[in-house]
Amino acid sequence: MRFLTFSEPHSAPRLGAEIGDQIIDLTTLSAAEGVSLPGSLLDLIRSGTSGTAAVTALLAAHTPQTLQRYTRAHADVTLHAPFRPGKIIGVGLNYRKHVEESSRSLDTDSDLPPRPVLFSKPSTAVTGPGSPILHDSRLTSQLDWECELAVVIGRTARNIAEDDAWDYIFGYSVVNDISARDQRRSGQWFFSKGQDSYAPFGPVLVTRDEITQPMELELSLRVNGALKQNSNTRYMLFPIPQLIADITSGVTLEPGDVIATGSPDGVGAGLTPPQFLRPGDLVEATIQSIGTLANPVADANSPADSATLLEGATQ
Amino acid sequence: MRFLTFSEPHSAPRLGAEIGDQIIDLTTLSAAEGVSLPGSLLDLIRSGTSGTAAVTALLAAHTPQTLQRYTRAHADVTLHAPFRPGKIIGVGLNYRKHVEESSRSLDTDSDLPPRPVLFSKPSTAVTGPGSPILHDSRLTSQLDWECELAVVIGRTARNIAEDDAWDYIFGYSVVNDISARDQRRSGQWFFSKGQDSYAPFGPVLVTRDEITQPMELELSLRVNGALKQNSNTRYMLFPIPQLIADITSGVTLEPGDVIATGSPDGVGAGLTPPQFLRPGDLVEATIQSIGTLANPVADANSPADSATLLEGATQ
Repeated sequence: MRFLTFSEPHSAPRLGAEIGDQIIDLTTLSAAEGVSLPGSLLDLIRSGTSGTAAVTALLAAHTPQTLQRYTRAHADVTLHAPFRPGKIIGVGLNYRKHVEESSRSLDTDSDLPPRPVLFSKPSTAVTGPGSPILHDSRLTSQLDWECELAVVIGRTARNIAEDDAWDYIFGYSVVNDISARDQRRSGQWFFSKGQDSYAPFGPVLVTRDEITQPMELELSLRVNGALKQNSNTRYMLFPIPQLIADITSGVTLEPGDVIATGSPDGVGAGLTPPQFLRPGDLVEATIQSIGTLANPVADANSPADSATLLEGATQ
Repeated sequence: MRFLTFSEPHSAPRLGAEIGDQIIDLTTLSAAEGVSLPGSLLDLIRSGTSGTAAVTALLAAHTPQTLQRYTRAHADVTLHAPFRPGKIIGVGLNYRKHVEESSRSLDTDSDLPPRPVLFSKPSTAVTGPGSPILHDSRLTSQLDWECELAVVIGRTARNIAEDDAWDYIFGYSVVNDISARDQRRSGQWFFSKGQDSYAPFGPVLVTRDEITQPMELELSLRVNGALKQNSNTRYMLFPIPQLIADITSGVTLEPGDVIATGSPDGVGAGLTPPQFLRPGDLVEATIQSIGTLANPVADANSPADSATLLEGATQ
């Protein structure tokens, strides 16, 4: 299943499923059928397998014809972040070539990390597809991008063995791990990576069963159409099962938590000369089998731009 | 008001108020009076001023005599963490002498930080008064303490000026910012400070009006009765209003978020020779006008100890 959260003008966000290039309005469909569905994608994740099973059964009872009145075109709706995560754990330096470029341009080591380098982004940093990444010139002149595979946790996970790790995954999405490189504080990344709008998330949440080879996904990122990042999840230093085993050796993961699994090379700080995001830019992060997460960059101090409320802070 | 969350045997956690050395069971009292109160301390914080006002009115209508049937002794109840925070933002290196000791014993700079050093702890790290801090010998031999004033946010805060910052505070509590010093990952503190049970929190949440001089509070920490930390919040490098102004320049704070304002000197890593926590130890973090947060240290791999479920991961 490809889940998403969308709204139509003047409506509250609803739960949707993407089928082909169409969106099925699951909230309205289930109400019309008298079927009880969780009210949001986060509630659906937290319901365990029952929410997804209910959606599957609901759709199986229909044909494209009978679904037509519940079908929306992408052009007619606004997508939101799929949900507001509980916690977002980021993995730094998880692709070999990114370790190299970071050691040249930033303050990190050139040796490969012996253990996953973990940090976190707050849920207030989340913003949806199409929503602006805020560029605040009072805080940064080094706003940077990082296209990352987001692993969404589906079951409470503590002390999980690598062999069992896949069972704890609900699905996958895309996170753009935005950083203000000049806001690292005595080496700590939280304020650099945790500001409002610094975690674009979406456009869809693809359930685990639909992606059979998550460690073989092409991922790429474009700025104003120009290719900046182009890699494959097979180059992760610590693959997904190792990340889950390592994190849960000390930190409980809960349904709706997200692991941002790290960025490949091609970030702005690593280019010669360095390139950073400016208001007016468009950033498109694409992962195979999931889709493209596109966000404009806006001036945080422009009245027009700052009138756009941030999803993370208001949901 | 001094709010707390407590339970009696076989009962769900309830909202309480501490008056003198007694606890008033606000949940039961309000139900008996037909007064609607938020169901938890987090809901009360999120209700703005109305929840606190309702409690104040409820108590004002009573005498000690008429309150007697709703009064519990500390010895008869279990305290829990006051609530599960949304996000916990920690401030590193926020006391001059701690900057000095850290530069001698850890990998931090000896210069005073020019800006607040921010990191975060996940809400799954929270544990309550009396609950064990888990010592996992597979992960650490350098488990350390840090007594910190916790500032609890009461209103959504973005771009707040220092002069206005106090208005956004709901109240104060104590956080013990536990660290596994040997689990810093390429300098990042998240896994070192974010493991389950690494954020003891409590014992009470004291509303802002009760603490007129929050920048003049004695704070101290004892391990097995021996004094290790002894300082005063007046020695913070970045006082509370500056922290709120700095954080909210980029990160929205929400009701129920917590700022752990940093540790004074006297941490285990800074002692000669270094001293670290071991199973069987008792850690007591005390802040003037708030109280003492006491936690035993338990072996995470002992069946008896690990049977104690963690509040952060289960609430």
